[in-house]
Amino acid sequence: MKRLEALKQKMVMRKKDGILVLNSANLMYLTGFPGSSALLISKDRECIVYSHDVNYEYTKRNASHLEVERIKPGENILKKIVKKAKILEIEDLVLDSATIETWNILSKLSDKNIKLEVDRSLIQDLRKIKSKKEIKQLKKAAELTIKGMQVAAETISSGIKESEVAAEIEYAIRKHDCSSMAFETIVASGKDSAFPHGGFSNKEICKGDVVVVDVGAKYNFYCSDMTRTFVVGKPSEKQKKLLQIINRSQKKALEIIKEGIEANHVDKVVRKMIEKAGYGEYFVHSLGHGVGLEVHEQPILGSKNKDKVTAGNVVTVEPGIYLVDYGGVRIEDTILIKKEGIEKLTDGIHNFELE
Amino acid sequence: MKRLEALKQKMVMRKKDGILVLNSANLMYLTGFPGSSALLISKDRECIVYSHDVNYEYTKRNASHLEVERIKPGENILKKIVKKAKILEIEDLVLDSATIETWNILSKLSDKNIKLEVDRSLIQDLRKIKSKKEIKQLKKAAELTIKGMQVAAETISSGIKESEVAAEIEYAIRKHDCSSMAFETIVASGKDSAFPHGGFSNKEICKGDVVVVDVGAKYNFYCSDMTRTFVVGKPSEKQKKLLQIINRSQKKALEIIKEGIEANHVDKVVRKMIEKAGYGEYFVHSLGHGVGLEVHEQPILGSKNKDKVTAGNVVTVEPGIYLVDYGGVRIEDTILIKKEGIEKLTDGIHNFELE
Repeated sequence: MKRLEALKQKMVMRKKDGILVLNSANLMYLTGFPGSSALLISKDRECIVYSHDVNYEYTKRNASHLEVERIKPGENILKKIVKKAKILEIEDLVLDSATIETWNILSKLSDKNIKLEVDRSLIQDLRKIKSKKEIKQLKKAAELTIKGMQVAAETISSGIKESEVAAEIEYAIRKHDCSSMAFETIVASGKDSAFPHGGFSNKEICKGDVVVVDVGAKYNFYCSDMTRTFVVGKPSEKQKKLLQIINRSQKKALEIIKEGIEANHVDKVVRKMIEKAGYGEYFVHSLGHGVGLEVHEQPILGSKNKDKVTAGNVVTVEPGIYLVDYGGVRIEDTILIKKEGIEKLTDGIHNFELE
Repeated sequence: MKRLEALKQKMVMRKKDGILVLNSANLMYLTGFPGSSALLISKDRECIVYSHDVNYEYTKRNASHLEVERIKPGENILKKIVKKAKILEIEDLVLDSATIETWNILSKLSDKNIKLEVDRSLIQDLRKIKSKKEIKQLKKAAELTIKGMQVAAETISSGIKESEVAAEIEYAIRKHDCSSMAFETIVASGKDSAFPHGGFSNKEICKGDVVVVDVGAKYNFYCSDMTRTFVVGKPSEKQKKLLQIINRSQKKALEIIKEGIEANHVDKVVRKMIEKAGYGEYFVHSLGHGVGLEVHEQPILGSKNKDKVTAGNVVTVEPGIYLVDYGGVRIEDTILIKKEGIEKLTDGIHNFELE
């Protein structure tokens, strides 16, 4: 597999002779299927995937390109891994992640023969740049997400419950092959829309409410993420103003974001626009985040990330304004950064006026 | 809150003067709402909940019983926590969980003034015993799960796709107030049912197939878990035999499980029954697991858990047999252990014959 080869090249460059993968999204990325427990990679020799009994047969069927080790009940997976690492003469082992307990056990088992190090960026950096095959899955996930959002636009009306709208959206998505939800749908109306991660309740949507709908379908393990803010009935002057500010902010972000620009710069420009409009303190999250096997992954479009945006990145762009005791507005699209320009993967459905 | 008081009592007993909670299910359990980032508890004084900007207003609204600290962009939450711990004169700080990175940062910040320790069981042990209020939510989740399984029984037929059945099940559950899914529904038919975590695909279900359906609804953050194995059409002699073995095994488990019995003993008895029937090596997972805020939590009914089953435990009982290149069978119910006897929270729907 190309991904494993790319990782091995990175290991050579960084003079590491072994990687132990424990994070489930990283495992999925490198093996191509879910359910394995660990992956041990030596620089120039073997790749061994470890599977607990419950998923062993599934792993064996899918991992024809890898050596599969079965972990039987009572067997200690870390013991098996360290034993193998010693046989493979791994001296510098990089972990993609570890709890303090795992770290302590590995340290003890390794004696002084294996030097351990944790580096979350090693595989994250690879995952940031999507391959053609991944982009295909992400586009399909985005198409399904748009279908769900279309249902939201058709369903939202005075008197329907938030939970009912969420059920209709998810049903429309779930009916399709290989699809599921990337996260629990948010349908937050009225004052509750002021909480960015508001979920949904059994509250009835009322005339005049803003309704923030945040939807993400998953296709073949790849996620998508999209938000629209609807208004039931004729929007008030204030609602119109807020929607205009976030619309313009998002438009600006999509104009300036491109290969080579610093991630924090895009966040900064949008933040300044919203500040200038008088709502700076109410934009309480980063401008965006990477989307792939996980719905929140690298790269983050936020104030702390000085890395450059790169072709192959798939990120959300989602300005929002949240006014406690009033309500919130947010617009979010998932986009692909290309060598030249960008491509919106989610798009359309901008009817803010619903009867 | 009672839970915080119970935890403080445990701290006194174990001579610890501070706890730092970082695990999200533990945070949910102790605060009563989702979305906070950390909770610092001192033995006899304060409880401080830490919230990042994005969830700050939501946390403030829900945490009237706690002191709320806002983490602004760029602020280091661990730095804030250690500073507070020093003010509160915490000398022994127990963490409920930690990555190696978090551990290293906390160690550095604490100097030698705060002794750190990780203990996952401290809060897990509390969570194992469900309160009356929690049991009410779990029962509601179980009711919704049964509704979903009823839809499975009505929907499964020759020619329908696994993904369509899954969509119908989830829609039936999601239509209800405050409900969502505890995990992605499994609808695995034919040979694919041999993989316990098989998910679903776009495959059409055929006459003669076994269909393993594993469903879990969530109600007000509490989970449920239930599996039935259906046969489309008249079951073959082998299918009947396999279904009979797991039915009898589950019945046996439900007969012997009670307050005071060792968890591994129940697993052992069932495993022996399946072994005796000739399928021991094909029962590739533990007999069951705890269910609560997480769908897989403590206590595990497995070979390694010598703890005694206790009144207030809510666990699954789920024997299964998985034959590669043939198919699998599993039956699973979520049950409540009482002072006297048990109560099945999921029940019914045993029609193995469907046209």
